Amino acid sequence: MTPHPLTALSEAEFKKARDIVAKLYGADTSLFFRAIFVQEPKKAELAPFLQAEHAGKVTDKTPRPARQARLQYDVIKDGKPRHTDSVVDLDKGIEVERIVAAPESQTGYTPDEFGIFQDACVESQMFKDAMAEFSLPENFTVIIDPWPYGGPDLEDGAIPRWMQGLVFARDASKNNVDSNHYGYPIPIIPVMDVATRKIFRIDRLATGGADDDLAPRPRLSAPKPLFKNNVSSEYIPELLDAPPRADLKPINITQPEGASFQVHADNLVEWQKWRFRLGFTPREGAVLHDMCYDGRPVMYRVSYSELTVPYGDPRPPFQRKQAFDLGDGGFGRVANNLELGCDCLGAIHYFDALLADSEGNPTTAKAVVCLHEQDNGIGWKHTNFRTNRAVVTRLRELVVQCVVTLANYEYVFAYKLDTAAGVTLETRATGIMSVVAIDEGKTESKYGVVVAPGVLAQNHQHLFAVRIDPAIDGYGEGETRIVVEESAPVARDAKTNPHGNYYEVRKRVVEKACWVDAEPKLNRVIRMENTTKKNEMSGRYVGYKVTPSPSQMILADEESQVSRRAKFARHHVWVTGHRDGELWAAGEYTNQSTEEVGGVWDMTRRGDWFGDSEDGKGGGEEGARRSSPVVWAVFGLTHNPRVEDWPVMPVEIHHLNIRPSDFFTSNPALDMPAARNKSSVIVPCCDGERKEKGVNGDESVQQAALTHLQGSGPDVSAEEAGAHTRR
Amino acid sequence: MTPHPLTALSEAEFKKARDIVAKLYGADTSLFFRAIFVQEPKKAELAPFLQAEHAGKVTDKTPRPARQARLQYDVIKDGKPRHTDSVVDLDKGIEVERIVAAPESQTGYTPDEFGIFQDACVESQMFKDAMAEFSLPENFTVIIDPWPYGGPDLEDGAIPRWMQGLVFARDASKNNVDSNHYGYPIPIIPVMDVATRKIFRIDRLATGGADDDLAPRPRLSAPKPLFKNNVSSEYIPELLDAPPRADLKPINITQPEGASFQVHADNLVEWQKWRFRLGFTPREGAVLHDMCYDGRPVMYRVSYSELTVPYGDPRPPFQRKQAFDLGDGGFGRVANNLELGCDCLGAIHYFDALLADSEGNPTTAKAVVCLHEQDNGIGWKHTNFRTNRAVVTRLRELVVQCVVTLANYEYVFAYKLDTAAGVTLETRATGIMSVVAIDEGKTESKYGVVVAPGVLAQNHQHLFAVRIDPAIDGYGEGETRIVVEESAPVARDAKTNPHGNYYEVRKRVVEKACWVDAEPKLNRVIRMENTTKKNEMSGRYVGYKVTPSPSQMILADEESQVSRRAKFARHHVWVTGHRDGELWAAGEYTNQSTEEVGGVWDMTRRGDWFGDSEDGKGGGEEGARRSSPVVWAVFGLTHNPRVEDWPVMPVEIHHLNIRPSDFFTSNPALDMPAARNKSSVIVPCCDGERKEKGVNGDESVQQAALTHLQGSGPDVSAEEAGAHTRR
Repeated sequence: MTPHPLTALSEAEFKKARDIVAKLYGADTSLFFRAIFVQEPKKAELAPFLQAEHAGKVTDKTPRPARQARLQYDVIKDGKPRHTDSVVDLDKGIEVERIVAAPESQTGYTPDEFGIFQDACVESQMFKDAMAEFSLPENFTVIIDPWPYGGPDLEDGAIPRWMQGLVFARDASKNNVDSNHYGYPIPIIPVMDVATRKIFRIDRLATGGADDDLAPRPRLSAPKPLFKNNVSSEYIPELLDAPPRADLKPINITQPEGASFQVHADNLVEWQKWRFRLGFTPREGAVLHDMCYDGRPVMYRVSYSELTVPYGDPRPPFQRKQAFDLGDGGFGRVANNLELGCDCLGAIHYFDALLADSEGNPTTAKAVVCLHEQDNGIGWKHTNFRTNRAVVTRLRELVVQCVVTLANYEYVFAYKLDTAAGVTLETRATGIMSVVAIDEGKTESKYGVVVAPGVLAQNHQHLFAVRIDPAIDGYGEGETRIVVEESAPVARDAKTNPHGNYYEVRKRVVEKACWVDAEPKLNRVIRMENTTKKNEMSGRYVGYKVTPSPSQMILADEESQVSRRAKFARHHVWVTGHRDGELWAAGEYTNQSTEEVGGVWDMTRRGDWFGDSEDGKGGGEEGARRSSPVVWAVFGLTHNPRVEDWPVMPVEIHHLNIRPSDFFTSNPALDMPAARNKSSVIVPCCDGERKEKGVNGDESVQQAALTHLQGSGPDVSAEEAGAHTRR
Repeated sequence: MTPHPLTALSEAEFKKARDIVAKLYGADTSLFFRAIFVQEPKKAELAPFLQAEHAGKVTDKTPRPARQARLQYDVIKDGKPRHTDSVVDLDKGIEVERIVAAPESQTGYTPDEFGIFQDACVESQMFKDAMAEFSLPENFTVIIDPWPYGGPDLEDGAIPRWMQGLVFARDASKNNVDSNHYGYPIPIIPVMDVATRKIFRIDRLATGGADDDLAPRPRLSAPKPLFKNNVSSEYIPELLDAPPRADLKPINITQPEGASFQVHADNLVEWQKWRFRLGFTPREGAVLHDMCYDGRPVMYRVSYSELTVPYGDPRPPFQRKQAFDLGDGGFGRVANNLELGCDCLGAIHYFDALLADSEGNPTTAKAVVCLHEQDNGIGWKHTNFRTNRAVVTRLRELVVQCVVTLANYEYVFAYKLDTAAGVTLETRATGIMSVVAIDEGKTESKYGVVVAPGVLAQNHQHLFAVRIDPAIDGYGEGETRIVVEESAPVARDAKTNPHGNYYEVRKRVVEKACWVDAEPKLNRVIRMENTTKKNEMSGRYVGYKVTPSPSQMILADEESQVSRRAKFARHHVWVTGHRDGELWAAGEYTNQSTEEVGGVWDMTRRGDWFGDSEDGKGGGEEGARRSSPVVWAVFGLTHNPRVEDWPVMPVEIHHLNIRPSDFFTSNPALDMPAARNKSSVIVPCCDGERKEKGVNGDESVQQAALTHLQGSGPDVSAEEAGAHTRR
C-alpha cells in the first residue's frame, strides 16, 4: 500500500533512510543523529495530488511526489562536529540533497546532550570547586538543569557549541526523586563545550535584592551557607503538607455512542465536515495539513513555528537567559506521553510518533498527540419572544493537543476546530517558573518577585509564532490575497455623516511581503481571500480572517542581541511569500544565534510580491518573486510572576482566532442538532434545608430532581423541566 | 426566620411592598408598575453585618440593615405618566424615600409596553397607509419588533416617551408562527407616543446600496413590490431545507457523586473554597455579592452594568438605532427560561426570580439563572523530565449563567469562578442580527453586508460595562487602592542595562477618580490591592488584577449624540468613588437620553479621591469626597457582519479576566487532586482498516480500547494506558 505523501515514515522507511546516510561516510567519521522524519513534498507537487485526491481521482497511476526522508545529524571527524541535513529518496535509495551547516550554525539540543551535560558537571573539578564555595544543609543533592547557552556575548567571539546549566539542590532526606529542587537554587552557572564535553567556565550569579549592581560576582573565599530560610516547594501529591482537597466531585465526560471523529490510515482525521491530516515533526510537534471543510480547502498547513522566552534580568549572565523552545529544543522531541483521564477527558485517540536516537534508530514516542471532542457551551441560540420558542445548539470542538516539557516549564498547545467552521489555536503556559537565588530575607527586586524565601522568579516574556499557510477554497497559485481590514471613526459631516454615527470599514490589499501590527483601536483583522471566488450573498471574495492578538511584543532594546535574535517577536503579523521549507519564524538556527537569520524578518525584506502583475515588486531584493502569501501570527505573554505561580503555575490561556468570513452562504452551524442532552440533571437547593417557596424555585421540581440524583436514571420528563420546544 | 439582608423579596414581601405604595395614591391616579425588588442595604451598614456573618457571630441581636424594597412605577394622572421610585420599609410598613424622575427621564421599556406598541400599529390608519405603499407577496403577515426610540434628534425637541418599531413580514404559508420574519424587512419605522398609545409618525427608510444618499425618503405613490428575490432564512429545525446533521454523537457530562457545589437558603452558594450570594435584579439579571475565597473577601459586588449597541449607518433615521440593553430594557426582565440539557450540560441548579407585572403582582420568572460546574482542561501540569513523572490537575469552573433575548438578539453572560481562585466574566453574542431592507440585486453597501437577497446587516458595535466593587481581603473603608501596572522597555545603558534585555515594571497609584485605557503594548493591568495586608512571600500588598480588554471603543464622533449618550464606552476602565446605588455606567436613565447623565463620566468628573489624606483631592467638584474605589471595565465587539452570522449568528465569545496577584502565598490550586478520571476511553484508529504498526500506535492498546467502547465498562487498567504516576 503506497502511503499518502504526508504520512510519517514507517519504521522500515526510517531505518532505510538512516542506512542510506550511514553508508555515505567512512570509518574515520562518526554520526550523531538528531532527527529523521518524512520530507514534505514541495507545494507545487503536492497541491495537484491533493486536488486529485479530493476529487476522488487518485489511482496507482496518479503522479506522486517522490517519497523522501530528511535526516539531521552531526558528522564528527577529528572530534569536530559539523551539522548536516540530508534528504534521501526512499524508492531510489539515494541521497538527493545535502546541506552542511556553517560552523557557527547550531541546531537544537537533543535529550542525549542533556545527559552529556549532566555527566560533565559531575566529573568536573571546576564545578566541584565552585560548589565548594557554598555549604549546603545535610542531605541535599545537587541537580542540574541543562539550558541553551543563549546568544553569545560579544566578548565570547566566535564560539563552538556550548551549553549552560542552572543548578539546584534536592532535599534527599525526603527520599523521593521527584521532590522539587527548584525551591533551592544555587547561584552558579556551569558552561560546557559540547565537542570536548568539558565544563570550562563557571558563571557566578548575583543574589542581591533591590540594591543589586551588575558587577561580575567574585569567587567566594569562605563557604556561604545556602537555604537558611528556604522552604520546601513541593507539588507532587505525596509530598504536600496536606492531602488534596476532597470535595471535588468527578465530572465524567462520556460518548456512549462513540466519538464523532474518525481516524483513518495515514493519520487522516474526519470530523463534522472537517478533514485534515495530522503531521508530527521533531521540531514542531503536531502539524495540521490540508484542512478542508465540507470538501473545500481552508488551510494548506498550520503549525507552531517558534517560541522565544527572553528574561528581563540585566545582571550578567542573565542576559543570555533566552530560550527558543522550537529552534533550541523542539516541541516534538519534548512532547509528553499523554495519559488517559489526565490530559484530556472523554473519548480520546492518541497518536504515537517515531523519533531518532543519537544512532538514528527509531524510538516510539507514545501518545504524544491526543485528539478528542469537547463541548464549549452554547453555539447559537434564538428565542422568539412572541412564542417563547427557543432554539439552542451547542458549540462542539475537536481538539488536537500536545503538552511539552522544557526542563522546568510546560506548554499545552492545541488546534481547535469547531462546528461553526472556526479554528482556534490555544496555548496554555504552565509548569515551574525558571527561578534563581536571592539572599536570605530580601523581598524587593526590580527583576522579579520573591515567590518563596530565597527564590526569585524573574520577569520574562513568552512569544509564540504560528505559521498559517492558507488554501482558501483552493490551492491555486496566485488565488489568495491578504487584506488588512480596519474600522475607523469618521468625523461628522453634514453631507455624509450628519449625526456622527457612521464609521468606515476600510480595506488595504497587501501587495508585498510586510509586517502588520495588531491594532485593536482600529479593530484590525487580517483577511485571507480567494480572488477567484465570490460569496453568492455578499458579492465579496470568500475568505477567512485572523484576528491578531494585541499581545505585548518583545521588550528588549531593539539594538540588544536578545531582540536581534528574535526579530519575529517585534510585530504581530508577518506576510511573506511562500517558499517550500521556510517554516521558521526566527530562522533555522536559533541556538547561539546572534541575529535572526532566514526568519520572517529576512523573508519580508526579500520583497516577494502577491499581485497579478509585477507592479507590486517595488524595491525587492535579488531573488524576490511573485508568490502566494503565508501569514505568521505572533502573540504571547509578558510574565511578571505572581506568588500564585509558585511552585507550579496555574495555566495562562491564550487564543488565536481564525474564522470564516463570507466563506459560507449562511451560518455553517445552522444544521447543528437542537436536541436536548438527556444526561443532564437538576441539582436541588439546600440539602434538606427548607427554602421559602416561590422565591427560588418550585419545590416539586427540586424534589423530582433529587430523585434523579439518587439514581432513578438520567431521563428527564418534559413536565419536570419544561419542554425544549415551547409555544 | 429572618432573611439575609441580600435575599430577594419573598412573595409576601413583594405584595406587601406593592400594597404600601398602592395606598399612597388616590383614586384619580393609576399606577403602572415596572419593577419591585429588594433594596440592597448601604455598604456601610451591610459590611459590618457581613464581617459578623463570616466570623460566625450573627445572632438575633446582631444589628441588621432595615429590610426594604424598591418599587419603580409610573404615576399616571390626567393621562400623563411620571416615573417614580419608592423605597419602602417592610417592617415598618412605610415609604421611606421617593424619587420622582424629571419629565425627560425615561426608564426602560417593559414587555407590557412591547404589546401596547404592537397593538397600536395594528390599529393605526397611518401605519396601514404606509403599508399600502408596498405590495407584499400573498400570504405574508406583518410582524413588528418594538425598539427603543433612541436618542431624540435635535429637531425632535423635548419629547415625551416614544417608541419605534422595525417592521418585517412572515411567510404565513409555512403555517408556523416561528418562521423567521427577519429575512423579510419592510422599509418603514412607525413611531408611537406611549402616553396616547398612538402611532403619530412613519419614518421611511433608505434601501439603496453603495450609491445611497442621506436624503429623507418620500412617500411612495405606487405600491412597491417587496421580497421579489428574498429567500427564507429559517433556523427552526422543522423549517430547514434539510434535517440537522446526524453524525454528531452525544457528549454526556455527568457527576455520578453529585455536584461539588451547594446552594443554601438565601441563595448562598458554596463551591471549592468560593462562597457568594446570588442576587438578581430586573435591570442587571444575575449579580454576585460578597464573594469570598477560603474565608477571605474578594469582591463586595460584581455585576453587568450596561451594554450599548450603536449602529454605524448614517442614513436617517438609523442614527437613532442605538440600544442600551440594560437601561432601555433590562437583562433580568428579558432573561430566558433556561432548559435542562440545552443551555448547559451536567448537574445544574436553576434559580427562579420574581418580577413585577404592570399591576405590581409578582410573577415567577422560572430558571432565569443556572449554576453548574465544568471542566476547562489542564489546570496545571509538570513533568519531571528525569523521571518522566507527570503531575497534572484539571481546571474546574463554576458557571453562573443567564441568557437574555432583546427582540432579535441574544447574549449569554456568565460569571465563571475557578479552582485557581480566578474570576472570568464571559459574554457570548448570538441571536439574529438587526437587519434592514436593501433593494433587489444590490450587494454593495458601505453600511453593512448583504447576508441574503434583500437583507442588509448593518455595521454596529456591542459595548459592555462591568462594575467591580472590590473587597480585597477586607471590607474596610480606605483599605483598597488601585494601581496601574505596566511593563515598559528600557533603553540600553552601560550601567543599568548593558545588554538591553532589562525591562521595567512600573506602577502608578490611582489617587483620584479617572479613566484608564487598555494598553496591551505596555501590558497594562489594573491591580486592586489591600494596603493593610502584605503577602508573606513577596512583601507586596495582597491583590487581584483586572486585565482590561483592548476592545475597540465607541466609534461614533465624540460630538455625536450616539457617543455623548454612551460616554462610558470611550474608555476601557473607569475608577470612581463608591456611592451606594451608583450602579449604572451610562446613568440611570438611558432611554431617550441625549447625553450620559450620572454615569461613569460624571462620577469621574466629580473628583472623589482615594488616598489616606485629602492631598489627592485636587480640583474635585462640590460633593467630592474621600472614598473607596470602584472599578468599571468596558469591552466589546465591533461587529461588521459576516454572511456566516445569518440567520442566527455563531457565538462571539469574550472573556474579562480577574486574577489573584500576590493574594495567596502559593498556587491556590496546588491541592487540586491529580487523580485520573476513570470514565475516559481510548478511541481506536481506522474502523478496522489495518494501520501500519509502530507508526501510529500499538495495536494492542487500540484493541483493548475498542472493548471499552463496546461496553465493558469505564475502568481503564494501568497496563492499557500507562499508569498515571510513572517513575
